[in-house]
Amino acid sequence: MAERIGKRTVSLKNGVALRSFAAAVGPKEAEGPLATWFDVRSEDEFLGEDSFEKAESRLQQLAVTTALKKAGLESADIDLIFAGDLLNQCIGSAYGLRDFEIPFVGLYGACSTMALSLIMASMSVESGVADRAVAVTSSHFCSSERQFRFPLEYGGQRPPTAQWTVTGSGAVVVERCDDRSDPMILVKAFTVGKIVDLKVTDMNNMGAAMAPAAADTVAAFLTDTGTRPQDYDLIVTGDLGMVGSKLLLKLLSEQGTDLKNHNDCGLMIFDCERQDVHAGGSGCGCSASVLCSYILQKMTLGELKSVLFCATGALMSPTSSMQGESIPAIAHLVHLSSEK
Amino acid sequence: MAERIGKRTVSLKNGVALRSFAAAVGPKEAEGPLATWFDVRSEDEFLGEDSFEKAESRLQQLAVTTALKKAGLESADIDLIFAGDLLNQCIGSAYGLRDFEIPFVGLYGACSTMALSLIMASMSVESGVADRAVAVTSSHFCSSERQFRFPLEYGGQRPPTAQWTVTGSGAVVVERCDDRSDPMILVKAFTVGKIVDLKVTDMNNMGAAMAPAAADTVAAFLTDTGTRPQDYDLIVTGDLGMVGSKLLLKLLSEQGTDLKNHNDCGLMIFDCERQDVHAGGSGCGCSASVLCSYILQKMTLGELKSVLFCATGALMSPTSSMQGESIPAIAHLVHLSSEK
Repeated sequence: MAERIGKRTVSLKNGVALRSFAAAVGPKEAEGPLATWFDVRSEDEFLGEDSFEKAESRLQQLAVTTALKKAGLESADIDLIFAGDLLNQCIGSAYGLRDFEIPFVGLYGACSTMALSLIMASMSVESGVADRAVAVTSSHFCSSERQFRFPLEYGGQRPPTAQWTVTGSGAVVVERCDDRSDPMILVKAFTVGKIVDLKVTDMNNMGAAMAPAAADTVAAFLTDTGTRPQDYDLIVTGDLGMVGSKLLLKLLSEQGTDLKNHNDCGLMIFDCERQDVHAGGSGCGCSASVLCSYILQKMTLGELKSVLFCATGALMSPTSSMQGESIPAIAHLVHLSSEK
Repeated sequence: MAERIGKRTVSLKNGVALRSFAAAVGPKEAEGPLATWFDVRSEDEFLGEDSFEKAESRLQQLAVTTALKKAGLESADIDLIFAGDLLNQCIGSAYGLRDFEIPFVGLYGACSTMALSLIMASMSVESGVADRAVAVTSSHFCSSERQFRFPLEYGGQRPPTAQWTVTGSGAVVVERCDDRSDPMILVKAFTVGKIVDLKVTDMNNMGAAMAPAAADTVAAFLTDTGTRPQDYDLIVTGDLGMVGSKLLLKLLSEQGTDLKNHNDCGLMIFDCERQDVHAGGSGCGCSASVLCSYILQKMTLGELKSVLFCATGALMSPTSSMQGESIPAIAHLVHLSSEK
């Protein structure tokens, strides 16, 4: 049974165990600093498909298939799959997962979806609704560019605050941990984000739009749990990039919180200067692929023991922006621990 | 604690109580057979806003505000809100709910979202993650037409199999029922749908695309629970309309199940012939507004005691259809009962 602590945080008494995880990425990510940590690295940004959207679906398939394989499981062993992506009507997930025949819950949290799907999957296991569940998300640079910005052929200029959508997917299998005694990574607690909108309207500066949401959720978690940033080995945000990360540190500092041990998946996955990605990586697939490779492997190795994973999302659409609306943002946080 | 029964169905031991509900609709729905059952009926399809998308957000606000008011609650009393809609990036929900400051879970299940949100909200309460949660969805004829089909000004012809997207929203407040003894409506069980794709490609015949998913989920629930259709006062699908409803009965009949007591929200909300809506109503707001008015009020009055609510969704997008893809569909089912 879950227990509410403080105003917004939920503690999972026994914790929910991460059984396995996997990440699949495209060619640019395979040239980045985390290259060797990914399970699947494609040299073809189409992944053998005939459209970028189908390529994104393929990434989800690869991530889920690999995570299941690593755990020695089949799709029939999974009771629920929680998935989402950035594409209109979340087609990356629907088409990517339709052949698995696993009961399917579609989520939309923009780039925060990896944390949201992990929270929902953990909740389903904690409640007994599922014995075993999968959380998966994806994004693709090319499908995102043409949907949110311009067709690639147009060669649009990117301002320095812009981020580069990651071509990648990450999947996690979670299950009950009651009857297990082996070392494992646990979902110990989580905080579901509120929508925060400080009226940023620049679609080329998502970091600035999302930083206040991250600050809100991280502060809520620390207050609810009575802990400090230094109590964690890593506090990792989803894809604030350079601009948003600086703003997050500033916002929390103004509240008296010195955010130690912070990093951002968007800054980890690319070498921003060498790879010419301006302010860093972004997209659902950014935090998903970094979590499901480097971070969880470092936890498996015992080099990271207690991690706060806080993925951030910008909930606008091209339509809302063209109608003059500001960018509402959200951040969901998961506390992962390799200590029981 | 939830209990899995059969392969895919989940039984909520104590049940989760529906504390209140409300529906808000547009002018066409207010001229339909269910007119008097809706809480809010707008004569203006813009609802005082300057775009159809903002009008849809306004519908969600009205549904949630009214449901809270009927229960004597404020937004601070709600721990989680589960919401989704049909618009790209689910902006109907994000903008509609951003001012409530309630921790927000975005869902995407196309027109199945009302059942999905009710399932997730119930799961959150059952697990102890939330003491009280809200489920809400919406759709708007005008925002859907221009996004999925043509701008209204184009005056596109609608084939006879086409359905009319409902302008409406429905919201439900759920909470624990342990300490309550008053008569109430309970979520007793649910079945999360699988993605079913029988390769229908006609975007003007969603009923045909979705019927196999509804048949799959209804059959799974009946098998898992060992019950028959006649054990329920009403088995109501979301928005199969005329074409899909006939197909559902045929598909189940071929499996030896005579689907008694069936109706469809898309056929209930409009007088199809008089209101010229061809095959019936559709959209997330269709099943949401019919559930949160007529159905739940009939249950409150004791005229319906045991209801299976099975909302159906088509998970394609205009992009996937233009790329030659078929239409994957899904149906989620909730068993509602006014008997403890």
